Order: sequence, then C-alpha cells, then structure tokens
Amino acid sequence: MSNQRETPILIVEDLVADARLIARSMKKAKIANPIVVVTDGEQAIEYLEGTGIYTDRKQHPLPVLVLLDLKLPKRDGFDVLKWVRQQDGLKRLPIVVLTSSARSPDVNRAYDLGANSYLVKPVEGESLVEMFRQLDVYWMVMNQLPELDTDI
Amino acid sequence: MSNQRETPILIVEDLVADARLIARSMKKAKIANPIVVVTDGEQAIEYLEGTGIYTDRKQHPLPVLVLLDLKLPKRDGFDVLKWVRQQDGLKRLPIVVLTSSARSPDVNRAYDLGANSYLVKPVEGESLVEMFRQLDVYWMVMNQLPELDTDI
Repeated sequence: MSNQRETPILIVEDLVADARLIARSMKKAKIANPIVVVTDGEQAIEYLEGTGIYTDRKQHPLPVLVLLDLKLPKRDGFDVLKWVRQQDGLKRLPIVVLTSSARSPDVNRAYDLGANSYLVKPVEGESLVEMFRQLDVYWMVMNQLPELDTDI
Repeated sequence: MSNQRETPILIVEDLVADARLIARSMKKAKIANPIVVVTDGEQAIEYLEGTGIYTDRKQHPLPVLVLLDLKLPKRDGFDVLKWVRQQDGLKRLPIVVLTSSARSPDVNRAYDLGANSYLVKPVEGESLVEMFRQLDVYWMVMNQLPELDTDI
C-alpha cells in the first residue's frame, strides 16, 4: 500500500453543503488523499463497481476508505453497505458511517451490515476538523488497510 | 451506552508477557475500561457465548471492544472472527485485530472475515502506549459503539 496517500477517500453525501463542509474540513485536517464525492447510494455503487460514468479505473480509482451517510436518495447507506459486503474482492473495503443520526437502531443496523466504524457528525465546524484529524491518524497512519481486488 | 467506560475490553492474546505488556500499556494510556484477558481462541468464544467458566454474565460481562491476536492455540483469530460474525446479537461487536503480522494475506483475510480494523503491534513499548491513546480516542470517545443483545 505504498500509494495509500494517493488513493481517494470516497464521500457518499447527498447534501451538497454538507459534502463541501466535509471536504473542506478534511483539507484543514491535512488529509492528503484526493477526495471524491458522490451524492446518492446508486452513484456510490456505480463508482465502486466501475459502471455508468465510472468505467475508467485510472480516472476513478477504487477508494482506500469510504465515508458513508445513511439517509441517501435512490439507495440508502444500509443498501450500499449490504451491497459492498456481498462483493468478492471489494467486501473488505473499510466503510466508516458518517451521519447525523446517533439513534441506536441505526448504529446497530449499520454494524450488523458490516460497517467498520460509526461516527456522528459534530454540529460545530471546528469539531469536524478535529474529528478528521483523529480519523486520519487512526485509519491512514495506525491502521493497516486491506488490498482490494481491482479486477472486479 | 452510558456505562461504556465500565464495560470491559477483551484481549485475546496467548503470550502471557505480551498480554501483560498490552494491559500495562492500556493503563498508561489512561484507558478507563476494565481489561479481561483470555489466552486462546476457544476461551475467547466461551467468554463471548457465556459458556464454560463464563456463564455468569454479571461477573463476565460482554465486552465493548475486542483486541484479537491472530496466531492463537486451539482456535485461531480468524476462527474467532468467523464465529462472532455468525452470531445474532453478537455479530456487531467491534473487533480490532492486534497482531505482529503485517502480511497482506493476513490483513486481507481478517477484513474479509469482518474485522473492524487491523493494527500491528509496534516493537517499542512507548509506541504501544501511544497506539492505545489513539485507539481510546477513536473507539471509546469519537466512535459510536453498538448495543449487544445480552440475551444470547
């Protein structure tokens, strides 16, 4: 994983303002990875399977990590989780839920469907930057990431 | 999860010296949770299912997080992962692999079997304390933990 820092982080977030805030906060937190944003669950799946407008893997490389909102149009975050965990070679992709809901049924269901971790968006912008600093140290520095099978 | 800090962290580690170093480093990192150590995969499963010497859940409560070594006697860490992910109500339990192997096949297989995260033990004691500090901030403060079904 020598090019771990050049591989994108995929953000799945339907609210444009929220996606912008997330991307800006990640930059402020000095996360070096390119950031790719898709805005619904169907797009997320197309990106990950390399279909639709995402067939060129050089232009749209598989991400090193996914930040997944739960409430999404077309197919929701639970659907995306379920889909990823059923794909050979892709099922090991680390997925961190990033949502505004701290409701236990949502948390439990996300883990049941194979979420690696569950983060609740803090209301304040500064706390979001701090969250991404910690996320970066944990997932990109300390944690060993898996290799994905890029033939899928 | 109001009593999240009173719920144990389960360490599955066969080498007594390593288990002691881990427990000591966790204390130094100011991890407030009680620490429970089991020394092989069979014991880990008995602890989690509440059988053998672990039938009293008040004395042996389900953990909030598991730190799982991979090379273990009787049943190895991969076996434990596989078993946990097949249990209703328990399958959502966060499991962080903590091992000396950074080999890709081990990393990939652990994620394939449902590990939430994969950490490689640093060689130096001081780095281990720092790792536990980060682990504590990430899993016990930032991350939302699931509720386990204690009826199992």
